[in-house]
Amino acid sequence: MSEEPSIFTRIIDGEIPSYKLYEDQHVIAILDIQPLTKGHALVIPKEPAPSMDQLSEDSAAALGRALPKISRAILKATGATAYNLIQNNGREAGMSIAHVHIHIIPRYPESTHSFVWPYGEIDHSTAPTLAEDIAAAMD
Amino acid sequence: MSEEPSIFTRIIDGEIPSYKLYEDQHVIAILDIQPLTKGHALVIPKEPAPSMDQLSEDSAAALGRALPKISRAILKATGATAYNLIQNNGREAGMSIAHVHIHIIPRYPESTHSFVWPYGEIDHSTAPTLAEDIAAAMD
Repeated sequence: MSEEPSIFTRIIDGEIPSYKLYEDQHVIAILDIQPLTKGHALVIPKEPAPSMDQLSEDSAAALGRALPKISRAILKATGATAYNLIQNNGREAGMSIAHVHIHIIPRYPESTHSFVWPYGEIDHSTAPTLAEDIAAAMD
Repeated sequence: MSEEPSIFTRIIDGEIPSYKLYEDQHVIAILDIQPLTKGHALVIPKEPAPSMDQLSEDSAAALGRALPKISRAILKATGATAYNLIQNNGREAGMSIAHVHIHIIPRYPESTHSFVWPYGEIDHSTAPTLAEDIAAAMD
C-alpha cells in the first residue's frame, strides 16, 4: 500500500468533496467525476487495499453485498437497463488509483463503448493442470 | 429469470463438466472455456439471478468474499500480476449468459486487450441532482 492516503481515502475522510450515493460501515459509493456515461459510479471499500487480491474477506463481502442495491438505484434513477461492472487491478490492467474501486457503468441505447472481447478457445490438453494449479494455490 | 436452467446452473449441478477452481456454499469458480488469456476464470453465485441488481444480498456478499482468495490463487498459479474483473448485465452490455458471473481476466506482458475508456467530465450543474436521485432510489 502507498504511504500517502489515496484520493478515495481522502474522499472517505471528507477531505475532498464527492457526489455521494451510498455509505455504510465498510463501503462508499460516489459518482465518477470522469464518467463514461450518465450515472457512472464507483463502489469503494473503505479499507485502502490497492487490489482485490489484497483486500480482506470482510471488506470484499461488504463490497459485494452493496452491489445489488446500488445497481438497482442507478437503474431506477437513470432509466438504464444494462450496465457493466469493471474493476482493474495493477497499472498494466488500466488501474489508475491504487485503492480498490468497482466501476458501475450504465449503458444507454446510444452508448457506443464495448467491453466484449473475442472468444478464445481453451486448450483442453493443459486446462486440467492449470485448474489444478489454481485450486492448489487457494489459501 | 429464465425457465430453463442456465448453463452455469447445469455446471453447478454437475450435469455439465467444468474445470473447477473453487466452490463453497454459495459460489463456484471455473475456468472460462473461451478464455481471453491464460487463467481467465468465472466466479459464479449458485443463486441463478440474471443480473447483479437481482442477486440477493447474501449471495452478493458471498461472491465478494470469494474474490480476493480466487484472485490470489490465479496470480500465484499463472504468474500474472495484473488483472481485470468484469461483470456484464443485460445483453446490450455484452452479457451472453443470463446468470451472474464475474470474469477474472489475468493480464500478461504480451496482452494486447484493453478495458480502459476515454475519460469524460462530469457536468457539475446536473451532478448534485443525479446523485440525490440515485441516493433516493436506494432501497
